[in-house]
This record gives sequence, structure tokens and C-alpha cells, in this order.
Amino acid sequence: MSGNKQYQPVNLKEKLSLVDDQWVPRVLAEMNDYQFKIVKIKGDFIWHDHPETDETFLVLEGEIRIDFRDGAVTLGKGELFVVPKGIEHKPFAEEEAHLLLIEPKGILNTGHAGGEITAQNDVWI
Amino acid sequence: MSGNKQYQPVNLKEKLSLVDDQWVPRVLAEMNDYQFKIVKIKGDFIWHDHPETDETFLVLEGEIRIDFRDGAVTLGKGELFVVPKGIEHKPFAEEEAHLLLIEPKGILNTGHAGGEITAQNDVWI
Repeated sequence: MSGNKQYQPVNLKEKLSLVDDQWVPRVLAEMNDYQFKIVKIKGDFIWHDHPETDETFLVLEGEIRIDFRDGAVTLGKGELFVVPKGIEHKPFAEEEAHLLLIEPKGILNTGHAGGEITAQNDVWI
Repeated sequence: MSGNKQYQPVNLKEKLSLVDDQWVPRVLAEMNDYQFKIVKIKGDFIWHDHPETDETFLVLEGEIRIDFRDGAVTLGKGELFVVPKGIEHKPFAEEEAHLLLIEPKGILNTGHAGGEITAQNDVWI
């Protein structure tokens, strides 16, 4: 190394250990105008889409299914899927699952569907 | 599920099992104008920067160190770091490590430094 400054990595498991709720994405890091978020989910989310952007799901623990109007994808630990922009989807997890989400800043968890499950945006952990 | 189409997840371990070289990033998926790439690394890379973009490193196996001119960050499995745009950096791994890289399309592994270690860009796996 050329200098002494110790930069800090983001440890996904450590950050997940701080989360005790579900369906509330929390921001870990930013890359340009994108954000990395962790979230714990269990049960059924609502149908929604993000007309302006793709959205990436990476499963860190557990298994999820993302339903689409014409089918579904099942993701286990270490599996990634990019939901194309404008495509309606509904995440589901039978048991609690832990996800890394990657998407542009400012994207709400419910897209434009709204409702009481809409989480506050841009909450850091 | 609402339809019968089975979409395919990207399994990071399966994709890594297909890689038998080092320092050659391969594209797994795209999100808008960004790409997810896997790469195996061992030893010292060269000093370089990406003046136009941040670059994200997520360690999937092993441990790496990213040196900066004023310090360093060490990343173990499940740890993430975003190298800010324009900051010179040099990845290093004492033993082979497996990484997920996230960055815009069109970014060369050596930035603008060039040289023989520059990998062909936009190679999918």
C-alpha cells in the first residue's frame, strides 16, 4: 500500500444484522446515481413496476420468487435477476429472505403503485 | 404466479465455475446502461483510474486489497466497496479471489492506463 489511510468496506452480513423489519430497503452505498440497498422480505409484496428503470435483485439469504404477469423467476442464495423497466412484478418469499437491491437513487419500493407498504426512501444504514 | 413462463436467474457460482482465467471480466447481466461482471483475480493489477465513473467491487470468494495512493481497503467475502471516479487504484489478491464488478457499459478494466493486461470488453458468459 502507498499510504496509511484505512478505508472501510461495507459488510453485507453486518449491515443485515442491524435490520429487524421487513420490506424497508436501506441504503449501503452509492455508485454514481445508483444505490445499493439491503432489505429483508417475507410474504407477498404488491404488484408494481418502475417505468423509468431496471431493478436488480441479488439474493443474499433464503429464496424468493418474483412473479410477472406472464410467469415467474425463483432466486436462491447467490442468484441475481434484473427486472426490466416497466414490467409489472410482485416479489414473494415464503420464509424471510435477505436481498441486495441495486437501482437508481429515488426509486420507491412500490414504484408508482403507492399504498401503505411504501417505505421511506433514501434511508441509510 | 400469473403465467407459466419460467425466467432464468443468473447463478454467480455457476458462472464462476466456467471461468478458468484471471483478470478477464465477463458480463453476466445488464441493468440500464450498467453491467454486472464476474472476474477471478490473483496477484497485482496495475495502477489505473476511471475518470468517468465510480466502480463497485463485491467479493464473492477470497480476500482482496485495493490500494489507493493514500491508503487501502481490504475486502473479504460478502464485502463491498465503491471506488470513486477518478481515484487511482490497484487491486491485489494474495490468493485467487472471485469478484462481482458493477460499472457502466464500456469501461475497460485498465481504465485509461492501457497495456497488455487490458481485457477485451463486453465479453458475456
